[in-house]
Amino acid sequence: MPTLRIALAQDNPTVGDLDANAELIRRAATAASEAGAHLLATGEQALTGYPVEDLALRHSFVEASRGRLDRLAAELAADGNGALPVAVGYLDADGPIGNPHGHGIRNALALIQDGKVLFRYYKHHLPNYGVFDEDRYFVAGHELHLARIGGVDVAFTICEDLWQEGVPFAAAAEAGAGLVVNINASPYEQGKHGDRIELLRRRAAALGAPIAYLNIVGGQDDLVFDGGSTIVGADGGTVAAARRFGTELLVADLDLASAGQEGDRPNDAATLMRVTRHVVSEAVETPEWPVEAASVPALGRHEEVWEALRLGLGDYVRKNGFKSVLLGLSGGIDSAVTAVLARDALGPDAVWTVANPSQYSSEHSVDDAADLAERCGIHHSVEPIQPIVDAYLAQMSLSGLALENLQARVRGVIWMSLSNQHGHLVLAAGNKSEYAVGYSTLYGDSCGGFAPIKDVPKTLVYELATWRNEHARQLGETEPIPENIILKPPSAELRPDQKDSDSLPEYAVLDPMLLAYVDGDAGREDLVAQGYPADLVARVANLVDGAEYKRRQSAPGTKISRKSFGRDRRLPITNHFRGKAAGSSSHGSLGE
Amino acid sequence: MPTLRIALAQDNPTVGDLDANAELIRRAATAASEAGAHLLATGEQALTGYPVEDLALRHSFVEASRGRLDRLAAELAADGNGALPVAVGYLDADGPIGNPHGHGIRNALALIQDGKVLFRYYKHHLPNYGVFDEDRYFVAGHELHLARIGGVDVAFTICEDLWQEGVPFAAAAEAGAGLVVNINASPYEQGKHGDRIELLRRRAAALGAPIAYLNIVGGQDDLVFDGGSTIVGADGGTVAAARRFGTELLVADLDLASAGQEGDRPNDAATLMRVTRHVVSEAVETPEWPVEAASVPALGRHEEVWEALRLGLGDYVRKNGFKSVLLGLSGGIDSAVTAVLARDALGPDAVWTVANPSQYSSEHSVDDAADLAERCGIHHSVEPIQPIVDAYLAQMSLSGLALENLQARVRGVIWMSLSNQHGHLVLAAGNKSEYAVGYSTLYGDSCGGFAPIKDVPKTLVYELATWRNEHARQLGETEPIPENIILKPPSAELRPDQKDSDSLPEYAVLDPMLLAYVDGDAGREDLVAQGYPADLVARVANLVDGAEYKRRQSAPGTKISRKSFGRDRRLPITNHFRGKAAGSSSHGSLGE
Repeated sequence: MPTLRIALAQDNPTVGDLDANAELIRRAATAASEAGAHLLATGEQALTGYPVEDLALRHSFVEASRGRLDRLAAELAADGNGALPVAVGYLDADGPIGNPHGHGIRNALALIQDGKVLFRYYKHHLPNYGVFDEDRYFVAGHELHLARIGGVDVAFTICEDLWQEGVPFAAAAEAGAGLVVNINASPYEQGKHGDRIELLRRRAAALGAPIAYLNIVGGQDDLVFDGGSTIVGADGGTVAAARRFGTELLVADLDLASAGQEGDRPNDAATLMRVTRHVVSEAVETPEWPVEAASVPALGRHEEVWEALRLGLGDYVRKNGFKSVLLGLSGGIDSAVTAVLARDALGPDAVWTVANPSQYSSEHSVDDAADLAERCGIHHSVEPIQPIVDAYLAQMSLSGLALENLQARVRGVIWMSLSNQHGHLVLAAGNKSEYAVGYSTLYGDSCGGFAPIKDVPKTLVYELATWRNEHARQLGETEPIPENIILKPPSAELRPDQKDSDSLPEYAVLDPMLLAYVDGDAGREDLVAQGYPADLVARVANLVDGAEYKRRQSAPGTKISRKSFGRDRRLPITNHFRGKAAGSSSHGSLGE
Repeated sequence: MPTLRIALAQDNPTVGDLDANAELIRRAATAASEAGAHLLATGEQALTGYPVEDLALRHSFVEASRGRLDRLAAELAADGNGALPVAVGYLDADGPIGNPHGHGIRNALALIQDGKVLFRYYKHHLPNYGVFDEDRYFVAGHELHLARIGGVDVAFTICEDLWQEGVPFAAAAEAGAGLVVNINASPYEQGKHGDRIELLRRRAAALGAPIAYLNIVGGQDDLVFDGGSTIVGADGGTVAAARRFGTELLVADLDLASAGQEGDRPNDAATLMRVTRHVVSEAVETPEWPVEAASVPALGRHEEVWEALRLGLGDYVRKNGFKSVLLGLSGGIDSAVTAVLARDALGPDAVWTVANPSQYSSEHSVDDAADLAERCGIHHSVEPIQPIVDAYLAQMSLSGLALENLQARVRGVIWMSLSNQHGHLVLAAGNKSEYAVGYSTLYGDSCGGFAPIKDVPKTLVYELATWRNEHARQLGETEPIPENIILKPPSAELRPDQKDSDSLPEYAVLDPMLLAYVDGDAGREDLVAQGYPADLVARVANLVDGAEYKRRQSAPGTKISRKSFGRDRRLPITNHFRGKAAGSSSHGSLGE
C-alpha cells in the first residue's frame, strides 16, 4: 500500500483579488513541498474567491482567471515547486464568454504540474438553492478525471459533487479511485459541520477509500467559510482535521490502495460517467519522517457561533479597507454583544462607541454602556440627542410612532456623520428576531454598513453574552458584558417605560415561531397546528410579511442559520398571501 | 378550415392574492363566454401572481394554489361558463412539497372545462438568468399536451418555452398543432416588445400555424409586466394585438387547420417530446357575428418608458395599501420627473411634496419646486433644514463630505417623519446614473420605500421631461415641468456653487460608459479599447464598484433596462477585482 502525503491549503482568499489569492497558493505550495507532500489541493475557486456572483458574466473576469491560472502554473515551477501536483480551484470557460445566460462558464479545478495544466475538471452538481445561484452562471461538467500519483488513482471533485448521490462519487468508485479529493467553498451554518462529517463517513464507506475534504475559510459579505477541512479513512474514521475559522496547511500521510492495472483499462469501460486517466507518477518516495495526524477539539455550540460572527465581521471590515468601526451603545444586549464581537475581531483600539441618551433613556443605560466600554477598553463618547430632536419638533408636529422613530433616526444621523468625518464603518446592532418582525427604525438603528448579529435570534444573543462572560472567567479575564445588561428586560427606550414585551410576545415564545415561519417555510396554519394561538400567529406572521421592505434595505450580516435574511430567503415585498390564519397588514406597524 | 374564437385575458394579478386573482379569471370567463369565445387563456401564474419567489418553497402556498385551482374550476362551472375551456396559469407540485431544493414544484397550466381539470402542462424551459430564478423553484416538465377544440389541435406552452429553440414548439409542429397558445409573465424592458414580435413571426413561420401570445400586465416590486398580448398568423403577420400597460380581454377569430386524423395517431409517434392528446370538441359553432381584429398603435420610445414607470409606481403604491406618496422637491430634474410620474399614476391629491432649502439652496430651486407643484396641482410645503443642521453642528464638528451628507440626511429624516405621521409612502428620486456611481447620500436623498426612476439614466430623465412637456402641449394641457428645471445644470446644492460636473463627467459621457460597464458587463479594458481615457475609466469603474454597498440598501424601482440594479445584477460588495485599468478604491467616496 503506497503512502501518500497529502496537503490541503485551508486558506482565506478574497473575491476578485487574483494576485493575492495566487500568492496564497504559491506559499502553500512552498510549505507543502518543504513538508514533503505528494499532492496539494486548494479550495473551490481559491484563485478567484467565492462566490464571485455576476463577475462570472464578465468576459474580462473569466479571461483574467484563466490567464492568472496559466501564470500561476509558471510561477509554481519557477518557485521550485513544479514537481508537486497542485489542484487549483478557479473560474474557466470552454465556449464563448459573456453571454447573458452564462453558458460555457465553468466552476473548475485544474491539476497543475511542471508548469502545465494536466487536466481541468468541471463541477458536475451545481447548487441553485439557499444562497447558491450556480445554475445562473455555470454549466455542469460530465467528465471525471483520475490522476495516478505515487501509484494511486486520485479522483477530483468539487463541493456539491459530494452532497448528491450517484456520480461523480459513484463513478470514482467504479473507476477504482484510491482517494477522492473534494474541494469546497462551504458556508457556515450552525450544525452543518456535523452533517459534513456524517456525509463524509457515508461516502467514504461506499467508496471504500479515503476522502480528503478541503474547505476555505473567511468572510465574504454575508457568508463565512468555516474551514474544518477533514480527511476521513475508508472506514469512515477521521484521519486528520484542520481547525475551524482559521487558515491552516493540513498535512497527513495516507496509506492508499495502489491502482493495480486499471491504468490500462480503456476509458470507455466507464458506464456511469466519462472518465479520463492521467499519470503523474507510478511511485513516490515514502517520506523519511511521518507527520503527526492533526486534530482539533470540537468547538462548543456557542463558541462556534461566536467564532463565525467574529470572523465574518473582521473579514468584512478588513477586506473592504476599513480601519475602525463605530456603533451606538444603547446599554442594551444587542449593542453590547456587537461591541464585544468587534473588539474580539478587530482589537479594542479599532472600536468606537457612542451613547445617545434621550429623555426616555434610563440612567442605568448610560452607565451600563460606559461600563461595557471600560471593561472592553474601547473608545466611548456620549452625544445626547434631545437638543437635536427638539430642533425637528420646533418645525414639525410629531407624535406616537413618528416621535419614537425620530429619536432613532437622529441617532443614525449622528453615527453616519461621525463615520463620514472619521472613516469608521458603522455597525448595525439589530438581531434576527428584530429583523424578522421589523422591530427597528428604518434609517435609524438599522443604519450601518454591516450587521454582525443580523442572523442571531434574540434568545441566542443572550446565550452568547452569557457564554462570552463565562469564557472570560475561564481565561481569568474581566467579563466584558456588565451583568445588568444581561439581566434587565429588553427595551427600545423610545417612550416612557417602554418594553419590547409591550409590542411583541416574549422572545422565548417568539423565536421558535420565527424559526418555523422564517427558517422553516411553515405556513400560518402549520403554526396553529403546532399549538400557537391563531391571533398570535396572525400578528407575528403579519409583522414578518410586512417588514420585507425594511429587510430589503438592510445591511448584510453573517449567516449562521439554515436560512438567513438576504439572498438565502427571497420573498416579494408586494405579497398578499396570508394563508388560512389571516389578519390584515401590508407594511408593518412596528417602528417604520 | 374551422374558425375558432380565441380570448386572451390580459389581466393584472396580485402576488399571493389567490381569491382576487381567481375573481379576475371568473370575470374574464364570463366576458369571453358572452363574446362567444371557444377558448380562454390567462397569464403565466395568473392565479398566484408572478414571481412568487420563495413563496414557492412554502408547502402551504403550493397547497393553496392547487386547492384554489380546483375551486376555480367549480366556480367557472357554477357561473355558467363550464363549457368554455379555460387555460389557467398557476403553481403546482407533483411530489412532496416544501423541501429546500424546490424539487417537485411546477410552473403549471391547467386546462379547465366542465368543472374539471383536463390536463396539467408543466413549463419545460425554466429561465434562470437576469431577474429569473426558476431553477431555484421548479422542475421542468417533459410532456406536451394538445387539446382538440372545434376540430383543431391546440398546444399549450409557457413563456420561456417560446424563447428557446427546439421543444416544445418543435414538438407542437411535429404533432400537427393548428394553434399554439403561449402564456407569459414577461417583464418590460426597453426594446423587448419588438423582440417578442420578431420571435413570434419566426416561430409561427417554422410552426406553420398561428401563435396566441398572452402577457400579464401590472407592477410587482421592481418588475412591470407590459401586456401587449399578440396573435400572429401562420404567415407571421399580426392578427390581433392588445394594448400595452393596461388590462384587456383580447378576442380574435382565427381560421385554423383542422386536425385531420392525427387524433388516432398513437402518442409514441412523437419523437421529440412526449405528447398527450385530449378531445374537448370535434366541432364548434361558427360565431354568428365576427369580431373586429383589435390592434393598437405602437407607443413612442419615451411614452413607452413613461407608461412603464407610471404603472410600476402606481401598482407598488396601490398593491401595498398606500393612499398617498411624499417626496422632496429640490427644484432639480429628478424630483420633478418623479413628482409628475406620481401625479400621473395616482392623481394630484395623492402626491405630497416638500422643499427643504438649506443655506446652499438657490432661490430659483425653491421657486422652481413651488412652480412645479402648482402646475401639477399637488400638495406642497416648505421645511427649511438650517435650524436642524445647526443643532447637529452645535454638538459635532463636521466638515466637507460629512457636512454635505448631514444636510441630505436631515431632509431624509423630515420626509420619514412626515411619512410616519401621515401615512405617505416616501419616494426616492435617484436616477440610474446616480445609483451607479453612488452619487447620493445613504439614508439621505436615498430614503424611501420606492424609487420610481431608479433604472432611468440621467440623460433619459431629461428626455422624459422634455417628452412629457411636449405631450402636455399636444393635449393642450399645462406643461408640468418648468423649463428652468430642464435647462439649469444639475447640482446637489450641498455646498456653494456645487455642480454634478465637479465630481462626475458630463452625463452625455458618463451614461454610455455606464451602459457598457453596468448593463453590458464590459471590463475596464473593454472601455479603454472603446476609446475612453484610462484614468476616466478607472475613476468611473471604481465609483461603480465602490457603491455596491449603497445599492444593496436601496429601495426597489421599476426595471426598464436590459439590466437593472437589484436581482438583475448580483455583485459582491467585497470585491477586489479591478481588471487591467485599476486605480484603487473600496467603498466609494461620493456622498457616503
